Amino acid sequence: MITYISTIKVTYSDTDQMGYVHHNNYVKYYETARWELFEQLGIPYKAVEEKGFMLPVTRMDLKFIKPAYYDELLTIETTLHKISGAKIFFRYKLFNEAGTLVNKAEVTLAFINSATRQPCLAPEFIWQKIHGKGLENKASVN
Amino acid sequence: MITYISTIKVTYSDTDQMGYVHHNNYVKYYETARWELFEQLGIPYKAVEEKGFMLPVTRMDLKFIKPAYYDELLTIETTLHKISGAKIFFRYKLFNEAGTLVNKAEVTLAFINSATRQPCLAPEFIWQKIHGKGLENKASVN
Amino acid sequence: MITYISTIKVTYSDTDQMGYVHHNNYVKYYETARWELFEQLGIPYKAVEEKGFMLPVTRMDLKFIKPAYYDELLTIETTLHKISGAKIFFRYKLFNEAGTLVNKAEVTLAFINSATRQPCLAPEFIWQKIHGKGLENKASVN
Amino acid sequence: MITYISTIKVTYSDTDQMGYVHHNNYVKYYETARWELFEQLGIPYKAVEEKGFMLPVTRMDLKFIKPAYYDELLTIETTLHKISGAKIFFRYKLFNEAGTLVNKAEVTLAFINSATRQPCLAPEFIWQKIHGKGLENKASVN
Repeated sequence: MITYISTIKVTYSDTDQMGYVHHNNYVKYYETARWELFEQLGIPYKAVEEKGFMLPVTRMDLKFIKPAYYDELLTIETTLHKISGAKIFFRYKLFNEAGTLVNKAEVTLAFINSATRQPCLAPEFIWQKIHGKGLENKASVN
Repeated sequence: MITYISTIKVTYSDTDQMGYVHHNNYVKYYETARWELFEQLGIPYKAVEEKGFMLPVTRMDLKFIKPAYYDELLTIETTLHKISGAKIFFRYKLFNEAGTLVNKAEVTLAFINSATRQPCLAPEFIWQKIHGKGLENKASVN
Repeated sequence: MITYISTIKVTYSDTDQMGYVHHNNYVKYYETARWELFEQLGIPYKAVEEKGFMLPVTRMDLKFIKPAYYDELLTIETTLHKISGAKIFFRYKLFNEAGTLVNKAEVTLAFINSATRQPCLAPEFIWQKIHGKGLENKASVN
Repeated sequence: MITYISTIKVTYSDTDQMGYVHHNNYVKYYETARWELFEQLGIPYKAVEEKGFMLPVTRMDLKFIKPAYYDELLTIETTLHKISGAKIFFRYKLFNEAGTLVNKAEVTLAFINSATRQPCLAPEFIWQKIHGKGLENKASVN
């Protein structure tokens, strides 16, 4: 497991007329958070695409516990939980400034070969960066 | 169970640089689809808010099976599955023009009293509209 | 000049906490409206990209006259005003259900050759579709 | 004139299938930048709304000079140019990491009394914060 803490500031366009952060934005916050974790590992997602791989989301399961509001500085705890076969699993907890758990989520993505648009094993350059971090290297592609 | 079929056209701003519909947009498609179902039942969501209730999402679980693309006319099958306590449960299937299942989802919302911002039972004016449609009337508020 | 009338329904995620349509959404409404005009002319924008051209926006000037609200059915009058050199000029008027002018805009796009990412003259297959519609054919590319 | 420099990181959901930042996102970047300038002046926009005022956009004029890309760290130079009557005028320049001018814009907003939803003069608590910064105090409301 690899855990990364990031923050995100709620912008005005993230709100809806209930005065809450519209629920679709959490999906964007989590996407940004996982690529910040990748960046931290030395694997910018931009480089992943340049090397011929893409990681579309295959499942996302979000639980909304409390609303979030305009201008709040939210803290996201992102955990890279597992890589198994062609899939990579993230777990999230999102807290507001008072430290209250606002949202939690599980998001799964697939490794896709951009040329064939078919699922593939996690590429070797990714395994190299997470080696020794408690995620067992089951299989990879070059 | 109440089922409603609607369509949605993918717009250019829904795409991302993979050339796919970005995953956050499905969340918006499903929101629009459930309020179209409500509209069809004679309960425009706008009226729900005017009567002092709001329905924020409390959980959403989406499975991405195939990508969707710019300019596709997607068909959404929305099922109002259950109302239980303060919660209302929707299920979705989303198909592309070839009839292929692209996405499926479960989305749960809570009835909230706008004045108190506390959860409440489904209001009576909603139960009246869905009476006799196979969703058992367990409890409601005026 | 070629004019096309289309409608767009305001979705919940288009609103912000003022209770208005957030201003960034008009930009999306106008994009959808211009490609509907193109579709009507027999030039789906998807086909434009498949033929190796792209039309990014080079300028947009929007005037916000009245707010728009959730669930309104807005009417957009899109005018393809001019093609000149590598540029194509649209003008818009957007009305609410009461017929009140809510927004007006001018949007300019450039014809770009996707391979070179350089500006180019309007392709011949576009001129063919708009021939005789009052837009003078000044120059084109194959 | 008051000038403020901020940065914004392009997220994946900001891109479209051209591989560019979709043009609607610049509108969001500029909104965030102007409220950061306000925050810096000691006038968080959240407080403006809490005091009973809102600032919807009345005009925006953007020129797109170069494309912006995923993961770029963009620099925004925001200038609070003028307050006149019920209107406040901002000018923007947006640069990419190479220092190239990517976009420039003028955005005008109106001061609105939230209770009456009518335009009003700039409130006194805003003038107090910008006093002596070269923006002439023409008129204000309490």
